[in-house]
Amino acid sequence: MGKWLLPEDLADILPAEARRIEELRRSLLDLYRTYGYELVMPPLVEYLDSLLSGTGSDLNLRTFKLVDQMSGRTLGVRADMTPQVTRIDAHLLNRSGVTRLCYCGSVLHTRAAGFTATREPLQIGAELYGHAGLEADVEMLRLALASVQRAGIHHARLDLGHAGLARAILAHDPAAQSQIDLVCDLLAAKDEAGLEAVLPAFGDDTARALRELLRLYGGIEVLAEARKVLPGLPGVTAALDTLEALARSLPVGAVSVDLGDARDYSYHTGAVFAVYVDGWPDIVVRGGRYDNVGREFGRARPATGFSLDLRVLAGLLPPATSVPAIRAPWGDQSDLMHAVAELRAAGHIVVQSLPGSEADQQEYAFDRELIHGERGWQVVVRR
Amino acid sequence: MGKWLLPEDLADILPAEARRIEELRRSLLDLYRTYGYELVMPPLVEYLDSLLSGTGSDLNLRTFKLVDQMSGRTLGVRADMTPQVTRIDAHLLNRSGVTRLCYCGSVLHTRAAGFTATREPLQIGAELYGHAGLEADVEMLRLALASVQRAGIHHARLDLGHAGLARAILAHDPAAQSQIDLVCDLLAAKDEAGLEAVLPAFGDDTARALRELLRLYGGIEVLAEARKVLPGLPGVTAALDTLEALARSLPVGAVSVDLGDARDYSYHTGAVFAVYVDGWPDIVVRGGRYDNVGREFGRARPATGFSLDLRVLAGLLPPATSVPAIRAPWGDQSDLMHAVAELRAAGHIVVQSLPGSEADQQEYAFDRELIHGERGWQVVVRR
Repeated sequence: MGKWLLPEDLADILPAEARRIEELRRSLLDLYRTYGYELVMPPLVEYLDSLLSGTGSDLNLRTFKLVDQMSGRTLGVRADMTPQVTRIDAHLLNRSGVTRLCYCGSVLHTRAAGFTATREPLQIGAELYGHAGLEADVEMLRLALASVQRAGIHHARLDLGHAGLARAILAHDPAAQSQIDLVCDLLAAKDEAGLEAVLPAFGDDTARALRELLRLYGGIEVLAEARKVLPGLPGVTAALDTLEALARSLPVGAVSVDLGDARDYSYHTGAVFAVYVDGWPDIVVRGGRYDNVGREFGRARPATGFSLDLRVLAGLLPPATSVPAIRAPWGDQSDLMHAVAELRAAGHIVVQSLPGSEADQQEYAFDRELIHGERGWQVVVRR
Repeated sequence: MGKWLLPEDLADILPAEARRIEELRRSLLDLYRTYGYELVMPPLVEYLDSLLSGTGSDLNLRTFKLVDQMSGRTLGVRADMTPQVTRIDAHLLNRSGVTRLCYCGSVLHTRAAGFTATREPLQIGAELYGHAGLEADVEMLRLALASVQRAGIHHARLDLGHAGLARAILAHDPAAQSQIDLVCDLLAAKDEAGLEAVLPAFGDDTARALRELLRLYGGIEVLAEARKVLPGLPGVTAALDTLEALARSLPVGAVSVDLGDARDYSYHTGAVFAVYVDGWPDIVVRGGRYDNVGREFGRARPATGFSLDLRVLAGLLPPATSVPAIRAPWGDQSDLMHAVAELRAAGHIVVQSLPGSEADQQEYAFDRELIHGERGWQVVVRR
């Protein structure tokens, strides 16, 4: 096999695409900064038990394991940066008030999450710690939508859900309490047959409510319907109140609700959301509330946030065009070096031709040339 | 043990430091861009045999290994990005002329390289492929020095060496040819006793030359001395010619020469260099020529480049100061939201206070406040 071959679902990012990703990366980090989100950079690997604290078995299966020669302990390569950022908030920063953090880095998965996915997403995201109120969720939703807009995509659809809804129904029924994880998986997979197989063991009210959850999907009118057909348990009412307030806080438009879906929100505890855009079959931004995940690091805090894969978002943008550049000759003359340095300091791309070797750089369109004329070195347009 | 504990020689980068690193990252990538270097992003992991192609056993020992569930093959987490970029030039881009590439990403080492080192350097660098002439080395030296200057460090010392010098001497002596790697290691470690133990088996001329190499260290006058005391072999003369031309191409100042040192230049074949700055005991930028490393990927090309650890460079800068920011109230009023959005669009950092929770963000100095006055929302200076 060729040594240049890469493992499945891993790829090099070549210049034109790398440039778009880099521009988007800067643009989103700058956006988060203007909202007051402070950048942190957690390490690529950690002890496995830190990395998986408060997360589900799905993340464990997706995490590559290594042996640490220094300690003999098992390390994991991060498959998700959110638990790392939670650790930083809980332990390292240990601030008492609201803390806003953002991050950007590669994560690695043992298997790609779907047909369209890479095993090395470039995760970027923002997290808000220390505020239990709805305002934190609203800020996160707005920032998630602003991220997609900043990329130049103006037709995003938002899907709202709630990780606590099915749990509230199941926790109320002594016969169902031990099956919470199983039922949540079945709901997420919209596996009606599987659900029907377990429902007979539950109370009638529970079974009816779970059947309803499966079909409570659609526009925000679904929330009013849910109030009629779901049991009036405190956890259910609170979840519906939250979702209604969130839906109202958003600019009108393509907001939909899916009350049965808690798929892949492994550590979430409250309102969750997903942003979809035209041209991509999967979720582009995923977020929501995950209170108290920091408990494992010694500090339970309200938490909400979102993340996205920069490669996916960059892939949705129009193809990059070539960049104008100036060709200059090679030479040691101080006036030439000065002219080249000045052009570069002004932000121009100046490629000096190495004697006998023309540059073969397809990213650039050499539309100008630095030549020596009557008035010294000057830039002329190439024909 | 606390779950928040990180493995030895790995650390989170907290906001103030992360901001400096991010600024430096952008600044250096922009610098490389104005020289015409195109950005590429190779993957975090590859098949181990690709990752180690053309490199020495040292890199192998420093590389974390993983099992790929998809192929059953061994993967390595990159410990150096240069071989990856060489693979991209050799196979993926496959251009005929000069190609300039740059990159920035985390690499991982099984053990830290020294007392001051991390196991996760943030490697940034530039590589020039397809030009065998000295001009490529000169461009690289200049760009390496410009990198340090761009960071705001103006007193850099440059150390020149040549990976082919000892090899030329050893290859000429049939008794020494099989010991090239051992002798290079001994020279690099300046291990005089170890060297004396192997020298008796070599020819007298070889032994004399190697002893000389050990002490040929100092200012550029060392080059003239080397011409007198080293054997006039073609490889030796060519190496000295190259070093003399390189030294001459640089702005006068702190250039030194170390003819015995080929330490850690595992894949280098020609002129090599190291940049040192005050306040850091180790090399800050390391670079040089490594022709034909791409052969393993099917394409032998002249190649020269350099790289540095952004964390080290950022650590040499003065501590970051807090960033001025504006505090704004929370609210849904469209005029407030508009005022906040305008300030953010102009680049200001605006943190909205969440009701009942003050932000605790030590990176920001809230020197202004957005308040509602007689003429609507306005920014006032806080006392």
